[in-house]
Amino acid sequence: MTNAGLGLVETRRVVLFTQDDPLVLESGETIGPVEVAYETYGELDADGGNAVFLAHALTGDAHAAGHHGDPSRRGWFDLHLGPGRMLDTDRDFVICANLLGGCQGTTGPASPDPAAGGERAYGLRFPLFTVRDLVAVHRRLLAHLGVRRLRAGVGGSLGGMQILQWALDHPGEIDQAVLACASARLTAQNIAFSKVARTAITRDPDFQGGDFHGTGRRPDVGMSVARMMAHITYVSEESLAAKFDRARRTTGAPMTMATDFEVESYLDHQAAVFLERFDALSYLYLSRVMDYFVPFEEEGVDLGSVDTRFLVISYDTDWRFGTEHSAHIAAQLAAGGVDVRHHDVRSPWGHDSFLLDVPEYEALVREFLG
Amino acid sequence: MTNAGLGLVETRRVVLFTQDDPLVLESGETIGPVEVAYETYGELDADGGNAVFLAHALTGDAHAAGHHGDPSRRGWFDLHLGPGRMLDTDRDFVICANLLGGCQGTTGPASPDPAAGGERAYGLRFPLFTVRDLVAVHRRLLAHLGVRRLRAGVGGSLGGMQILQWALDHPGEIDQAVLACASARLTAQNIAFSKVARTAITRDPDFQGGDFHGTGRRPDVGMSVARMMAHITYVSEESLAAKFDRARRTTGAPMTMATDFEVESYLDHQAAVFLERFDALSYLYLSRVMDYFVPFEEEGVDLGSVDTRFLVISYDTDWRFGTEHSAHIAAQLAAGGVDVRHHDVRSPWGHDSFLLDVPEYEALVREFLG
Repeated sequence: MTNAGLGLVETRRVVLFTQDDPLVLESGETIGPVEVAYETYGELDADGGNAVFLAHALTGDAHAAGHHGDPSRRGWFDLHLGPGRMLDTDRDFVICANLLGGCQGTTGPASPDPAAGGERAYGLRFPLFTVRDLVAVHRRLLAHLGVRRLRAGVGGSLGGMQILQWALDHPGEIDQAVLACASARLTAQNIAFSKVARTAITRDPDFQGGDFHGTGRRPDVGMSVARMMAHITYVSEESLAAKFDRARRTTGAPMTMATDFEVESYLDHQAAVFLERFDALSYLYLSRVMDYFVPFEEEGVDLGSVDTRFLVISYDTDWRFGTEHSAHIAAQLAAGGVDVRHHDVRSPWGHDSFLLDVPEYEALVREFLG
Repeated sequence: MTNAGLGLVETRRVVLFTQDDPLVLESGETIGPVEVAYETYGELDADGGNAVFLAHALTGDAHAAGHHGDPSRRGWFDLHLGPGRMLDTDRDFVICANLLGGCQGTTGPASPDPAAGGERAYGLRFPLFTVRDLVAVHRRLLAHLGVRRLRAGVGGSLGGMQILQWALDHPGEIDQAVLACASARLTAQNIAFSKVARTAITRDPDFQGGDFHGTGRRPDVGMSVARMMAHITYVSEESLAAKFDRARRTTGAPMTMATDFEVESYLDHQAAVFLERFDALSYLYLSRVMDYFVPFEEEGVDLGSVDTRFLVISYDTDWRFGTEHSAHIAAQLAAGGVDVRHHDVRSPWGHDSFLLDVPEYEALVREFLG
């Protein structure tokens, strides 16, 4: 078995589209070449019946589990992916790929722009794309890996949106879908937060109209503000209160305009870590993808042929894509005659719960995936 | 009667503290001179028994009702302040003053710094102050106006915090207090939002360490981001959904990174209006005041002598200072033997409800004020 026990794992890269055979986007625009970074865990059965695709969320990457040499730095889904875990590599062959538009190995707006002979990054010249386009790249990766059908597609937040779109568009490809804290219709408030983050980034003078790569200056202030704000929406008020309440770094010190409360220091840390690993352009593109995602409102949408069984999970303290978002997905699927069940899971941790140790969630997924 | 029918009103200014008789802050630091901008509505009775103090919130000002010449531009509380209204100028003499640290006529961090001969603004050299210091300035204003006792103190959000502190510290001065959507203990999430806003402002390169006045550059990007984000917290998810849902400026147009959804355009407008009327330094100081406000957790706090009757109002969709914040205030007061009642009012509009037409809220206040 490969990566036995999920110790050392490896990110692989493959060019799936070229300039001559480009990715044709839903908009009609094209991108080529498209290179994709991906990891796999476990081993594909001879009959190819044990493949599971794990789709990552806005700021995730291909590195979902195991480590790249330092066992203390493990993938973002390591808690749930491995031998005997919720996504069980003793049984399943799990694939995770960095998204189109991402910045951790897959072609995105920070990649060299062929139109400029690769001399500069795409920047804002990178075409806008949709969740459907993300799925097109995943499907090409499966073809490359020789996988024709997925035992399961699993994703949280934007990850869940990809699995949903995939199942709606391509009957016969996904047997079972697990959508955690996803949305099929962002609210005005969701879009509003997204708008503020984009404003912080694009109006940072160091953004330079998107052409900041190679200048030695990056929109770090805008990205810090965007990340801090987004982070507040990813965690519950309850978990922030439990973790920090009103604790100060120096109890009894005089008041100050500088960072003083522990929760402030925590946000500073979140921003600093984020700046090390994420690109501002990817943030813009991948956040915008979500704003426009309304799969059930497309003209001619037909659920009659959808043959995927769905498990839709929300968390009761999630206020980014809370219970109603999942209920909406489940109601739409059920109205179309699709096999779906929705569970609202008690968790103290808000939107981020799909990454964390929530026994009820884990038990539901284990039972569903059989 | 002055300003009969609440048409034209006038903002007056008075120097309440001088360099020789400065305002001594809770921290021990001093500020002088302190000029205060205020307005009054209605007429003070001969026995001085009809005075009402209205305390404004973070970004309010002294201009609460009527107009300054253009009848279409009325004060921020005009809906509830005037002849026959909730604060009834046929009966009451209502006083509203711009806060210490503000930027609409009262001395604040954008005022000339006497330590520099008035040649430049205080900037971040302005001392930090507390809610208690805001009250000290209000009390000096009342002395100037010959008002010795308030029939009522009324305030929403930061306004309510001032009335609360005042009533706790100075028995015998406020007969009745109306605190709407106030807090006596910001949560970690509240502080977190505040932190992000401050980061956006202070890290805007045009902030220039606070010394932007007179340079021709202001931290407009940071202020826009701070205001947009704060505005999301002032309105309910329900009201944003009802007003905008997912409406786009051009239905069916291709997706774009630019402003497209109506809610985005609305936030752009909120930011633009805010930049015209508010100063970044005042925003920093007045938001920080709230973070540190925990009147019931001070050493030696004694509610035994508090003789104010309290009406504490929250709104069920307020997620900035929601029901639990008011419940906490009411519980603390009740535990100390103070006469208090708390009503959680149904309103679709979130935190901003105290400014809006919410009949249940209006009826409660009318009945309470008698």
